[in-house]
Amino acid sequence: MVNQMYKNMLSGKSIIREQSEFATELGKKIGYENVFDYSLGNPSVPVPQAYTETMIRLHQTLSSNELHGYSPSLGNTSVREKVAAHLKGRFGIPYETKHIFMTSGAAGAIAHAVRCVTEPGDKLLTFAPFFPEYHEYVEKTGTELVVVPADTENFQVNFEAFEELLTPEVQAVLINTPNNPSGIVYSEATIQRMTDLMRAKQEEFGHDIFLISDEPYREIVFDGKEVPYPAKYYDNTLTCYSFSKSMSIPGERLGYVAVNPKATDADILAVMCGQISRGIGHNCPPSSVQLAVAEILDQTSDLSVYEKNMNLLYDELVKIGFEVVRPGGTFYIFPKALEEDANAFCIKARKYNLILVPSDSFAVKGYFRMAYCIDTEKVLRSFEALEAFAREEYGMKF
Amino acid sequence: MVNQMYKNMLSGKSIIREQSEFATELGKKIGYENVFDYSLGNPSVPVPQAYTETMIRLHQTLSSNELHGYSPSLGNTSVREKVAAHLKGRFGIPYETKHIFMTSGAAGAIAHAVRCVTEPGDKLLTFAPFFPEYHEYVEKTGTELVVVPADTENFQVNFEAFEELLTPEVQAVLINTPNNPSGIVYSEATIQRMTDLMRAKQEEFGHDIFLISDEPYREIVFDGKEVPYPAKYYDNTLTCYSFSKSMSIPGERLGYVAVNPKATDADILAVMCGQISRGIGHNCPPSSVQLAVAEILDQTSDLSVYEKNMNLLYDELVKIGFEVVRPGGTFYIFPKALEEDANAFCIKARKYNLILVPSDSFAVKGYFRMAYCIDTEKVLRSFEALEAFAREEYGMKF
Repeated sequence: MVNQMYKNMLSGKSIIREQSEFATELGKKIGYENVFDYSLGNPSVPVPQAYTETMIRLHQTLSSNELHGYSPSLGNTSVREKVAAHLKGRFGIPYETKHIFMTSGAAGAIAHAVRCVTEPGDKLLTFAPFFPEYHEYVEKTGTELVVVPADTENFQVNFEAFEELLTPEVQAVLINTPNNPSGIVYSEATIQRMTDLMRAKQEEFGHDIFLISDEPYREIVFDGKEVPYPAKYYDNTLTCYSFSKSMSIPGERLGYVAVNPKATDADILAVMCGQISRGIGHNCPPSSVQLAVAEILDQTSDLSVYEKNMNLLYDELVKIGFEVVRPGGTFYIFPKALEEDANAFCIKARKYNLILVPSDSFAVKGYFRMAYCIDTEKVLRSFEALEAFAREEYGMKF
Repeated sequence: MVNQMYKNMLSGKSIIREQSEFATELGKKIGYENVFDYSLGNPSVPVPQAYTETMIRLHQTLSSNELHGYSPSLGNTSVREKVAAHLKGRFGIPYETKHIFMTSGAAGAIAHAVRCVTEPGDKLLTFAPFFPEYHEYVEKTGTELVVVPADTENFQVNFEAFEELLTPEVQAVLINTPNNPSGIVYSEATIQRMTDLMRAKQEEFGHDIFLISDEPYREIVFDGKEVPYPAKYYDNTLTCYSFSKSMSIPGERLGYVAVNPKATDADILAVMCGQISRGIGHNCPPSSVQLAVAEILDQTSDLSVYEKNMNLLYDELVKIGFEVVRPGGTFYIFPKALEEDANAFCIKARKYNLILVPSDSFAVKGYFRMAYCIDTEKVLRSFEALEAFAREEYGMKF
């Protein structure tokens, strides 16, 4: 018999995917260039030229075994060494090779990090709004995902609820800053207060509470700011990273877990990730991609278009009268819908060829996400549709 | 607190890895060219030239999004289509795109296949000798791995034990032919008898018994023979493949699950694999590797050196007086050790710079594995060491 749990999952379709499929179908009818598809977080800017050049050079010069041989299950040692040196140089934390575990993207990183610091039956906290796949990453390990309700004022942290939910059963806290879907960057004050509380609770409960920090959008940050690096504020931090967004290579599946050298059992956590790999069939991320990325760690794609799009879109949404918190990074914006039912709102938007994602699956009601990793030209063209939608369906005046 | 199960796994070191590490250390002292390292199954022949050329061309010609964008979680659709057509053409089974799920190597394929057709608490049968990672692939899903003792006569199947152990709790049977570590190819008669029995038991128990067929060595077969393709003999077959050995790209992590179109729920099993992915952080195998391999599906590396090495080594082992079944494929050979304790045997061999792997971790006692995916020149040079070892330690005369 086939597994019933996974079979039953087939009926629970992701709303993001549904909207995206609707966009594709609509594109077949009216031309995809006329669909204002804000559904998917798929990077729209090209890979750095240096990535392509490095990859071609590696294929021309390295031996087959050097380029395509098994890398150790923790990742290619020279790659781990370079990642450690890069992080040490940038954030001043003395990472060494032994603290780095190479993964298949951030999904792989979180799958390992959660298994590393929780046991089935434990609780793990995260904060609304959050990427809905967190449910799968956490709950399929047997750990319970507890959601701290959103601070809808500014999408920082609802500390009252956090403190209440941070009970002795909680072994780990999962954060995502810059945040998908809100686009918000946690301020230094937020991270300071959050980690102060976690330190106090570690003391009170007499056990570690690990911070799993999911940072695929670390490099996409606006107004020339730097994202506060959570591991600088809290020793028991596992940093989960992906090169998917910063280098526009989501299909190539490369990321890492970086263990703070001051974490409990810091010297064995990456090796434990290697053990975890064995049971989930992970093995190692693609060797050629590891080697290519390691040579250009200080580079990113030209990410400036995301800031440009954000500024245009933010101003337009404000002009129309949307309530919206200005993003500090990512390629998402998370305005309040014009009616309570975000699903109904997004369905109505389809009539205007606007593909939006309702907020319910991000664990907040009444908002919607726009992924503006699309051409600026299309962002601009979408304004007429946005205005017609708000005016005709909700009587907005502006 | 860190997870205790994974922490405890750190002390249980793999003997294969231990021997390989010993070989590396010894190499530092006496020069690795003087170490007869038969420990690791790492392909020694280069990737097909067409792979390298295709990869460079794709990087030069495709857009960033075409080459590096997220592929769907089931794999790139055009790639799945080509794999289905390739298998259909070769084996005459009417695979369609919907039956193919692209994975990160065979490890990823088995991790998904096992979760697909078992529930925690079920039993899954496999046959000694087998690749020790099967323990992890199966047991970490909560399913019990039941081992059918070896047929040490010819390393086909011990049918008496198989029939006895094939109880109603068994939901799946996992086979590996050509086999690691024995090098044996299951004969058509073996597969026929095995699947006849499984069909009868399906009928008797009133539930499906899936066959998971792990076939990374399908293309490495000797004497011009063709490996019988298990899915041709049994409808409920999930074929797990990897391009690691056939194209010498183990580090690039590409494989697939192919669902027999006549299997129960054949139309949804690949989609279920996509659901399974979400919980284990798999997502999709590297997009550029998918696209490159899909263009050269009918090619392999020049695998002839493995047959050449096998013939030389087999003759030498027989000459010395080892009991050994002649391999039909792979790059492994599995002779009987010259004393009962295979571990002691392999430790003694170290003195002769011979790095062998004792059979205990393959669930058979008293044998050892040699992975002859090394240069023929080294195989030949190792004969003097093999002879000295057998003569001096065990008084063999030849």
